[in-house]
Amino acid sequence: MYPDKFYSVVEGIRTMKIRGAGRIAREAVKALKLVSENIDLEDRDKYISILRDAAKKLVDTRPTAVSLPNGLRYVLNRVLQSYESGASVEEMKSVLVESADNFIKSSLQAIKKIGKYGAGRIEDGDIIMTHCNSQSALSVIVNAYRMGKNIRVYATETRPRFQGRITVKVLNKEGIDVTMIVDSAMRYFINKVNKVVVGADAIAANGAVVNKIGTSLLALAANEARVPFMVAAETYKFSPDTLFGKLIIIEERDYREVAPESWVNKYKHLTIRNPAFDVTPPEYIDILITEIGVFSPSVFPLVVREMFGSFYSELEPWEK
Amino acid sequence: MYPDKFYSVVEGIRTMKIRGAGRIAREAVKALKLVSENIDLEDRDKYISILRDAAKKLVDTRPTAVSLPNGLRYVLNRVLQSYESGASVEEMKSVLVESADNFIKSSLQAIKKIGKYGAGRIEDGDIIMTHCNSQSALSVIVNAYRMGKNIRVYATETRPRFQGRITVKVLNKEGIDVTMIVDSAMRYFINKVNKVVVGADAIAANGAVVNKIGTSLLALAANEARVPFMVAAETYKFSPDTLFGKLIIIEERDYREVAPESWVNKYKHLTIRNPAFDVTPPEYIDILITEIGVFSPSVFPLVVREMFGSFYSELEPWEK
Amino acid sequence: MYPDKFYSVVEGIRTMKIRGAGRIAREAVKALKLVSENIDLEDRDKYISILRDAAKKLVDTRPTAVSLPNGLRYVLNRVLQSYESGASVEEMKSVLVESADNFIKSSLQAIKKIGKYGAGRIEDGDIIMTHCNSQSALSVIVNAYRMGKNIRVYATETRPRFQGRITVKVLNKEGIDVTMIVDSAMRYFINKVNKVVVGADAIAANGAVVNKIGTSLLALAANEARVPFMVAAETYKFSPDTLFGKLIIIEERDYREVAPESWVNKYKHLTIRNPAFDVTPPEYIDILITEIGVFSPSVFPLVVREMFGSFYSELEPWEK
Amino acid sequence: MYPDKFYSVVEGIRTMKIRGAGRIAREAVKALKLVSENIDLEDRDKYISILRDAAKKLVDTRPTAVSLPNGLRYVLNRVLQSYESGASVEEMKSVLVESADNFIKSSLQAIKKIGKYGAGRIEDGDIIMTHCNSQSALSVIVNAYRMGKNIRVYATETRPRFQGRITVKVLNKEGIDVTMIVDSAMRYFINKVNKVVVGADAIAANGAVVNKIGTSLLALAANEARVPFMVAAETYKFSPDTLFGKLIIIEERDYREVAPESWVNKYKHLTIRNPAFDVTPPEYIDILITEIGVFSPSVFPLVVREMFGSFYSELEPWEK
Amino acid sequence: MYPDKFYSVVEGIRTMKIRGAGRIAREAVKALKLVSENIDLEDRDKYISILRDAAKKLVDTRPTAVSLPNGLRYVLNRVLQSYESGASVEEMKSVLVESADNFIKSSLQAIKKIGKYGAGRIEDGDIIMTHCNSQSALSVIVNAYRMGKNIRVYATETRPRFQGRITVKVLNKEGIDVTMIVDSAMRYFINKVNKVVVGADAIAANGAVVNKIGTSLLALAANEARVPFMVAAETYKFSPDTLFGKLIIIEERDYREVAPESWVNKYKHLTIRNPAFDVTPPEYIDILITEIGVFSPSVFPLVVREMFGSFYSELEPWEK
Amino acid sequence: MYPDKFYSVVEGIRTMKIRGAGRIAREAVKALKLVSENIDLEDRDKYISILRDAAKKLVDTRPTAVSLPNGLRYVLNRVLQSYESGASVEEMKSVLVESADNFIKSSLQAIKKIGKYGAGRIEDGDIIMTHCNSQSALSVIVNAYRMGKNIRVYATETRPRFQGRITVKVLNKEGIDVTMIVDSAMRYFINKVNKVVVGADAIAANGAVVNKIGTSLLALAANEARVPFMVAAETYKFSPDTLFGKLIIIEERDYREVAPESWVNKYKHLTIRNPAFDVTPPEYIDILITEIGVFSPSVFPLVVREMFGSFYSELEPWEK
Repeated sequence: MYPDKFYSVVEGIRTMKIRGAGRIAREAVKALKLVSENIDLEDRDKYISILRDAAKKLVDTRPTAVSLPNGLRYVLNRVLQSYESGASVEEMKSVLVESADNFIKSSLQAIKKIGKYGAGRIEDGDIIMTHCNSQSALSVIVNAYRMGKNIRVYATETRPRFQGRITVKVLNKEGIDVTMIVDSAMRYFINKVNKVVVGADAIAANGAVVNKIGTSLLALAANEARVPFMVAAETYKFSPDTLFGKLIIIEERDYREVAPESWVNKYKHLTIRNPAFDVTPPEYIDILITEIGVFSPSVFPLVVREMFGSFYSELEPWEK
Repeated sequence: MYPDKFYSVVEGIRTMKIRGAGRIAREAVKALKLVSENIDLEDRDKYISILRDAAKKLVDTRPTAVSLPNGLRYVLNRVLQSYESGASVEEMKSVLVESADNFIKSSLQAIKKIGKYGAGRIEDGDIIMTHCNSQSALSVIVNAYRMGKNIRVYATETRPRFQGRITVKVLNKEGIDVTMIVDSAMRYFINKVNKVVVGADAIAANGAVVNKIGTSLLALAANEARVPFMVAAETYKFSPDTLFGKLIIIEERDYREVAPESWVNKYKHLTIRNPAFDVTPPEYIDILITEIGVFSPSVFPLVVREMFGSFYSELEPWEK
Repeated sequence: MYPDKFYSVVEGIRTMKIRGAGRIAREAVKALKLVSENIDLEDRDKYISILRDAAKKLVDTRPTAVSLPNGLRYVLNRVLQSYESGASVEEMKSVLVESADNFIKSSLQAIKKIGKYGAGRIEDGDIIMTHCNSQSALSVIVNAYRMGKNIRVYATETRPRFQGRITVKVLNKEGIDVTMIVDSAMRYFINKVNKVVVGADAIAANGAVVNKIGTSLLALAANEARVPFMVAAETYKFSPDTLFGKLIIIEERDYREVAPESWVNKYKHLTIRNPAFDVTPPEYIDILITEIGVFSPSVFPLVVREMFGSFYSELEPWEK
Repeated sequence: MYPDKFYSVVEGIRTMKIRGAGRIAREAVKALKLVSENIDLEDRDKYISILRDAAKKLVDTRPTAVSLPNGLRYVLNRVLQSYESGASVEEMKSVLVESADNFIKSSLQAIKKIGKYGAGRIEDGDIIMTHCNSQSALSVIVNAYRMGKNIRVYATETRPRFQGRITVKVLNKEGIDVTMIVDSAMRYFINKVNKVVVGADAIAANGAVVNKIGTSLLALAANEARVPFMVAAETYKFSPDTLFGKLIIIEERDYREVAPESWVNKYKHLTIRNPAFDVTPPEYIDILITEIGVFSPSVFPLVVREMFGSFYSELEPWEK
Repeated sequence: MYPDKFYSVVEGIRTMKIRGAGRIAREAVKALKLVSENIDLEDRDKYISILRDAAKKLVDTRPTAVSLPNGLRYVLNRVLQSYESGASVEEMKSVLVESADNFIKSSLQAIKKIGKYGAGRIEDGDIIMTHCNSQSALSVIVNAYRMGKNIRVYATETRPRFQGRITVKVLNKEGIDVTMIVDSAMRYFINKVNKVVVGADAIAANGAVVNKIGTSLLALAANEARVPFMVAAETYKFSPDTLFGKLIIIEERDYREVAPESWVNKYKHLTIRNPAFDVTPPEYIDILITEIGVFSPSVFPLVVREMFGSFYSELEPWEK
Repeated sequence: MYPDKFYSVVEGIRTMKIRGAGRIAREAVKALKLVSENIDLEDRDKYISILRDAAKKLVDTRPTAVSLPNGLRYVLNRVLQSYESGASVEEMKSVLVESADNFIKSSLQAIKKIGKYGAGRIEDGDIIMTHCNSQSALSVIVNAYRMGKNIRVYATETRPRFQGRITVKVLNKEGIDVTMIVDSAMRYFINKVNKVVVGADAIAANGAVVNKIGTSLLALAANEARVPFMVAAETYKFSPDTLFGKLIIIEERDYREVAPESWVNKYKHLTIRNPAFDVTPPEYIDILITEIGVFSPSVFPLVVREMFGSFYSELEPWEK
């Protein structure tokens, strides 16, 4: 029923051959565009129905992803709007193409724009702390440096997987001085820095940010020391489900990331817990930096659901 | 001039053959006792002068130790008091023996008493978080468990040297269920526990506690979540110098504890900072548990300097 | 001039025969619909003028109500918008019918939807505190329970009128375990619960919530203990007047609710104050649960005034 | 073995014929004095041994009382000190008489002195909130009023037993204007007052105050509003056990104080919890007003255990 | 190319003959209107291009002004919208006239409306503190007074230029009692007042307020004492640049405002810093009072950029 | 009855010819010593009675001074103690001489010792803010600088009397770089400094510090920014009266210090308030630096009343 290319995208996402929040979303949107192009009929209802089925197939490949449904919401909600105002299939097709292209373009530029807007908030002489290895946070830092601002960075090593070392690598390549510390030294060094920049894995209805375990601890320490805490994230990290009461599930990873199996097996009264993320409440976040501007975390959901969701309904566009 | 045994203690402490805060202090006090026993003269001034020289020699072996000078202060201040009230050498000798024995006995029982007093504050069903591997904190936990209280423990792994694994081992031997987490997960799990117990390396004039890096971060998280934060420490951890403006120096350890040398060498813009301790302010500490009772951290200095130092003078007993 | 049924609704609301925030609003909207149906003329201005007069009559029945004017704003503002874009009377009539029906339907489903969205935020094993007897807060709790979540409830007795006992009755009927406590024991038990859910009587321009006396005290205690504090309320509880500086008046009730008259009369230096409500500031509220989704209290006014009021004018639709 | 009068005091305290924290302590001290007077022997050890047995009998009458053991500690510790310095029975007897008389005199004057010192902190025009019915708190208020200061009072009704009504009665008799409110209105009215004064049932090692349920909630509200929160209490309310880890047990009272049995019996999923007291942490208390002066709550334990307990030992004087 | 009057406005603004945030904005908008009226062609693109050039010229006169570009954004964005929907030059001209007139009218009424909305939040008997001399803050106070509310004012003298004395003058003319204090007495007197009202020079993307140096200190003191802190400001004080990362620059004024040059010259180790403004974070501001209603500071940017800027683009209307 | 010199000291203090907290206290103590030397009798009671009368005369010269009575308490309490233990007049005389000399010596060295202990807490590279012109605070700063520490200072101008300019002068003489700011810029610059040091005029029973108006505002700003706030003060600044409920009176100074009389007279609705001091609560003070060591403000009263007052009595030594 759908072009082969569509099925290969579905498979690519399901098998994680297509990876990365942005890329998944863009591939899904392109696949939907492909489906639309291949529909050759004039029945408005059928056209919508086919699109919905395709979208649903795409969404089902990764039920816990955030960016994937957001891309589809962006496109499909706009198509549905034109459908409701009585547009013909031809007209809806052109709405779909336009909104798909907009989404893809905006998504591709997101990291760059975040870097630009965020760098505006970095001042010459700033010392910045970051946690884990976030592409958008690094975009802010690197951009500021390339603008000629004299900055230095503190990077946590980020247990258990030491992603801080990747951050060190990226910054070194740019020639930016970086000091690496163990995660628990966050509070010890927080008075030596004057900005904190981190990324986000997902953003909830009240502006809370889900990010690498330890982020909320850093936010707490920054808040105590009155150091501005900034989160750099693409808008498609927003999770519209949370507007209707769904809680974001925190993934728990393999305990062997924390300690070797042989050691763990020696102790029968031992459990290891290894959550990958934690939740930073909005009151500890000074500003969200996104590709469409900077925001208070509490107003961000209002802005973003204009982009990705309809306002007064919990129904997803593929469910209507 | 002094007995051989005295010199071997001096050497033992200097070369770190004699280790452990409590043991160093007790050995130093025993050495002073030995010196006193070997003094065979009736001249009060000379007696005091010899003791002072011996004490100074002992203090000089480890200039940054805290327990060592406290043991000597405990004994020597009491001898000086009797000297000032006109006591004979004979009388001073017996004051020295008595106070040395008191110090040694109290020091030996300290961990046990701390365990007893602290366990009184643990309730059946409590879940306790601890950081690093502190003998006195574990004494509280184990004591409560042995009293039949049904408790569980969260232990941080404690980077960079993973002392949390020793804590796991000790608790497993007792049969106490323990969950190990990475350090940066402190805030994620703080709502699952209802008490925090940690140890102390040193305590300052305002009641601030110097302990393993990350302790102040845990205190901050506990404070935010209104989880009582308790510090278990022997009284000789108090640092009377701080009463007269001296700051406690935070030791910085080898960077290779944090990352392998070969990896570090790859990056010329990289520095690694590895402080061993941080400072927890008194307002985040609910109670200090010591072998002479439980205290607010802010009043602790008043109590302890009655034990170890004279009240209105910054002069050390071996300097007068 | 208006149909008899219209006058009987006006009388019913004035004499409080028609009661309950939701019902009042729906009856008023229905009455306006009736008026519209009975208008038989083509003059656009006259049509609007008659509607305005009718709306004004309805609003005047209960000058301090919140839901009543919101229902009328919802409908009338939409009609006025079509008027301004040049619609005919016929077209305006159909806008009126559609928006009236939307309002009524949404209002009727509000409690159910609030229950659904709110229940999403309740987790298995949660222990929930509530205050007074709120239909929407109970909807959240009962919904979560019916979804099979194992929950327990703490209910305050809620002096002076003991509405907590009605809450006990409702929860018992469902089979939900409930512990009743005196109001002043809120802080004592707040550490035993992990969620608080209450209702709202009115919501102000800055997101502050007016609810039963004691609510702000519970919010304060929850905030101190870092227990999430959730307010469940229908959108028509929002008070758009406050956007233009009006303060919500707190009703003071009969002193004999607090102590028997005979006892009071014995003391000539005694006054009794019996305010029915207090105001909870937005910074103590984690989330508002409404029938159109969950929100930060501070952004709620933005959302709701899109529903009920025009954006840049303080003029009520019946005043224009 | 002891005079009859001694046994009748023991019985009087046990059967609660002798009531009131102060009176119990004084009667116990008098009884000990009586015992001492009746001892007719010169053996120092026997004298002490008899006193200890008598003290133990008295302490055992009310194992959870706070004032009773404090009175006995006050007297017996002083006698033991003279015993340790080699005093004769005659001398010890006179120490006992002197310290017993001191304790009784100080205890009898306590309320008056508290009133005097506390009134110094009340300014003309002050509006004071109080909770429950505390003799010492009322002494502060009445004293200030009698000094001619123009003051007014807010009194909570204090559920479940309405002790606030007794407070109203006492203040009316003095002619002091009082406004009574329900307990949950504390925060609503806290901005109308500029001082809070309450009593204490017991005070713990860290300066925390145990008092009528709701006190900690009032302290929280006062703290939020920056209204000074003062606790008026006799020194014998201090609980020295807590210095060695004992927790103060919060008494739970009959559930029928909260709701009538017949109503409660209707609901099988209902529990009623009725704790009589709660614990106010020292950081919410500005000052303790006692008969020996005003103190920060955190330093109070230091002062008081000089009065009632020996410094470095958890052993009670009757246990040594 | 443009009418002479246009050039004289450009010159007037550049040379600061035209002063005052509101007046500058209105004159610029009028000048743009003039340009439009003088355009006599039908080419849509040329029309827009001429307007953009004119706008750019106006903006360039005062690169750091806030109100000036906001006025132009208000008008030009509306014209561009009609351009994009294919309007003719004629139609665009009429959009320009209408939006220019709207802006001018709304701007002229702003102070009055702010006074009206703000006065609604002042209660009889209120005592209000203000800082510096703000026309909009005074409008609130004077309005409340003229409505018959019995109010009093505390005014800081506002170093270094003593603008508080102008405030005293204005209030005296109205007959309002005012107490003047030195700036550093803010915290001493904050408990004597129950409201604070100040103005704003600029408002940033996160709701932070830039105002006279000392404003953030007053906000801090008000927050500590739980005194509501209100900012009265026209909507055109919002700085949309900050949405895209630009930081508001704080002007530093002549040091001779602080101390006489002759005195300063005596000291070679002396620097004087004289920043004119500081930044008050949104969490210390209870409400913003504007001519279009009252808002939480965090949501204000959302509202205002609907007025002045396009939503998803950082491009200024004169740059497109 | 007393030597002429005594009367001339009494007169000197009364007429403010003898000025400065320290000098007044020392002169009064010297005068008492003189009186003692001139007493030629063996009657113990008479000796004490004469001393008391003399002390009372001295105290009465300046009823609100703090240092004067502290000096007399220091000496007289020690004499009374020896009196109570049965000392002869000869012995009491020598106690008086010794304690008078101790007090005078300690007082003379106080500023120097404070400088020494405080400087220990200043680190190389520190930037320090100070308010007003305090000899003891400057002693800390200057001492640190002379020890070779590279430091800089921010000094407030300190309205209304510009004492900050004297601070500038003192620091310039030492060659220390100083930046002067208006008082209201405290919060703007607080993030540029890492220590605050101020003096004290008086210290109350709960550790609160009375100092130049604006000090509590600086403490608040330092607390918000987590900058350590240190108070440098001689022990005789402690006010033991406050232990028994007396409140420290805040002096209100001439309004013409704030604005010229001619300007004030123009406004009939104008009042000027000019309090000289404000009160900083102990929770905002990290440490008190005194000549006998550094302390938490809350424990300071315990230490000092051992020096100056008897423990369990509000009676002054000259009143007994």
